[in-house]
Amino acid sequence: MMSNQGSGFTECEDVSHANQMTKVSSKPDVSMLDPNILDDERKPMRKRMETYVKLLQRRLVDMIEAEENAGRASHDPKHFTVETWTRKQGGEGTSCVIQDGEVIEKGGINVSVVYGNLPPSAIRQMSADHDGLIERIGYKVEGPDAQVDGLPFFATGISVVIHPKNPMSPTSHFNYRYFELMHPEKLKDGSPNPNYHEEPVAWWFGGGADLTPMYLFPDDAKHFHKVHKDAADSQDSAFYVAWKKWCDKYFWLTHRGENRGIGGVFFDDLTLPMWNHRRTTFIPLMDGTNQANQVLVSSKQHNKESLFRAVRAMGDAFIPAYLPLVHKHKNDPFNEDNLEWQRLRRGRYVEFNLVYDRGTKFGLMTPGARIESILMSLPLVARWEYMEGTTGTARESSTAAHINDGENRKKHSEDEMKAREAMQDALEHPRAWI
Amino acid sequence: MMSNQGSGFTECEDVSHANQMTKVSSKPDVSMLDPNILDDERKPMRKRMETYVKLLQRRLVDMIEAEENAGRASHDPKHFTVETWTRKQGGEGTSCVIQDGEVIEKGGINVSVVYGNLPPSAIRQMSADHDGLIERIGYKVEGPDAQVDGLPFFATGISVVIHPKNPMSPTSHFNYRYFELMHPEKLKDGSPNPNYHEEPVAWWFGGGADLTPMYLFPDDAKHFHKVHKDAADSQDSAFYVAWKKWCDKYFWLTHRGENRGIGGVFFDDLTLPMWNHRRTTFIPLMDGTNQANQVLVSSKQHNKESLFRAVRAMGDAFIPAYLPLVHKHKNDPFNEDNLEWQRLRRGRYVEFNLVYDRGTKFGLMTPGARIESILMSLPLVARWEYMEGTTGTARESSTAAHINDGENRKKHSEDEMKAREAMQDALEHPRAWI
Repeated sequence: MMSNQGSGFTECEDVSHANQMTKVSSKPDVSMLDPNILDDERKPMRKRMETYVKLLQRRLVDMIEAEENAGRASHDPKHFTVETWTRKQGGEGTSCVIQDGEVIEKGGINVSVVYGNLPPSAIRQMSADHDGLIERIGYKVEGPDAQVDGLPFFATGISVVIHPKNPMSPTSHFNYRYFELMHPEKLKDGSPNPNYHEEPVAWWFGGGADLTPMYLFPDDAKHFHKVHKDAADSQDSAFYVAWKKWCDKYFWLTHRGENRGIGGVFFDDLTLPMWNHRRTTFIPLMDGTNQANQVLVSSKQHNKESLFRAVRAMGDAFIPAYLPLVHKHKNDPFNEDNLEWQRLRRGRYVEFNLVYDRGTKFGLMTPGARIESILMSLPLVARWEYMEGTTGTARESSTAAHINDGENRKKHSEDEMKAREAMQDALEHPRAWI
Repeated sequence: MMSNQGSGFTECEDVSHANQMTKVSSKPDVSMLDPNILDDERKPMRKRMETYVKLLQRRLVDMIEAEENAGRASHDPKHFTVETWTRKQGGEGTSCVIQDGEVIEKGGINVSVVYGNLPPSAIRQMSADHDGLIERIGYKVEGPDAQVDGLPFFATGISVVIHPKNPMSPTSHFNYRYFELMHPEKLKDGSPNPNYHEEPVAWWFGGGADLTPMYLFPDDAKHFHKVHKDAADSQDSAFYVAWKKWCDKYFWLTHRGENRGIGGVFFDDLTLPMWNHRRTTFIPLMDGTNQANQVLVSSKQHNKESLFRAVRAMGDAFIPAYLPLVHKHKNDPFNEDNLEWQRLRRGRYVEFNLVYDRGTKFGLMTPGARIESILMSLPLVARWEYMEGTTGTARESSTAAHINDGENRKKHSEDEMKAREAMQDALEHPRAWI
């Protein structure tokens, strides 16, 4: 299962015997995909988005393997472990994981396409993350006078986490996804549903990309943001402002008082007010602050087609935003101090994913979910130190923190301590990078 | 804050400026404590339990330091970092942490004594984990006709996690705690409360101890359980049966289909049906299965005094149950394979504490809580591998898991693989060790 925030499709059915059939190949197979449908408005969005994420997965696998193997002897290349699974109740996916490489310490590139019936309880739960969903559905879904017994759903997306080996090289994560709720063929009383052939009941796109460096290179941060901002601006100048803010808000580790990284973009519920792909209209934008009185609106009119173009622009942006940073730093010199700090920062990454990340939490709670695909986001190695002197929580007015900080300063060079503090400062005070 | 399951006192007040004053010493100071009050029924239980956990903390610090330093040159002893903090709204605590020792990789021994006012919302939340609490309180605590504006509370406890360095040496955790809710001095309308001088509105003990080995030594598991069972049996032959079952149930990692370790004892809500310390009566016992129709009852009559004796017997049992295992294994030979497996098992420990542990989750959600004390339970280093062949979730019918398992078998000796499987089997199928 991909790490999908709030779409909730992992909760819909008994998946205790999901993922029974798997096969392993050297590359995700894209031979049956038709790239021409990406721009073909007559084709169903679900098929177009599925094609898009699968092609993107393949491009990423190819490019990361090329980066990984550039310095290796040609007889000893490193490959992703590529595994295809099928879901008993409907759907399939491909998980690509690389581990213990020379360039990539651990990386996962997952794609999934799942569908089935979303029961009333799951619709209710999903409505908690998707404001106004119940009202828009139109059917009474629960209670003695429920009109339908759940709704058919479809979800597809790509979810990626890359932890490079070199401590100067930043970790990055992104995912983009598409979700649909449909009219059921029959109503709860068994009669044919007159609305069956209509447009989806609801649909939306979600996703984002963010960067988690161990050491702060402001030029890297600017580059990552700039490429994403340019992609967003090419579609709508209101996108980046809202999505950058939402990203900073979403990746906040409350208990540490710091961000997981230096941000990027994050959005959910990207749809039209009438859930319809025909009308062209200005759309509401959210920035994660949940201020009801503050209504952000797109700078130009959108339809479903233009939103799909926007999501593709963002998905395409990840490669030029991130891979140059891996390439730039993969041969940087580093020492044991740098590795120690990298492991500490990875401990924070683990904390975020296990304590806060909505997709991870949903996945872990789902009976029969493919746990290994969900937890591929965790780094290979992480470390926790009591009262590490530099980080947010240890900066409290604690004598032990001051003592440990003093020991850290004796143990590490002044440059190392300055670099750690610069990173920490950027995490505690999210910036506008461009 | 100690890692206290379900007592909820961490949620009670704005503690955003708690823990302002701290001091560091070499040992927890017990010079002002009077050990005679442990057996003096005329003294308040809160003071007796506080004295007990502080003396136990000091004994543990002394004994673990002795074990740590037995092999060291006398001019280079390793000590706990001992820090005392005070809580603005009432209370104090002492956190003792040892890190990067030769015997102990990371260990924390925390004691806290906190009190103040528990607001209505926190009482409601606490009642979710403490069945029947609202009914027993007797006051109307919420709504327009609320009689009180919260209730005074008191909580004290000890919380301990020890991660030894040698991979043959098991991790262990225990905590014991006492909680009281009192009658407020004044009612919500400002009038004096006629019940003010009565016994507490409610009180209970909670706690438990569990063992998490990396490699299974059945004799160690038996020893740990036997010492705790003997301690429990010395008080009531019905205790161990219920508490062992509750422990297996509580430490279950649902998403992995395995236990955190090989169990021990776990209990909460240990009290008298009438929350009174005078009556002597048979008491209900829970085993964590929440089967309303299955009523377990103590084998003999208890009063508050006998329950305190039981908690002390359990707390005292930890040292003879666990420290001999550290001593036994601290010089065992080990290799890089063993360390790798230790780090993988520690990854599971991190997953349990961040995803499931009620005390950790409560702590992390509490504004101003002392995060470093809560997360002292995390190991120094942890590792996550995709599709590690031996563990629960990777055993699914996955070709990648079989391939990785094959590579594991080439990489590691047959003995190592057998040992990992024996451990894994014990985690997936909790046993009656004695």
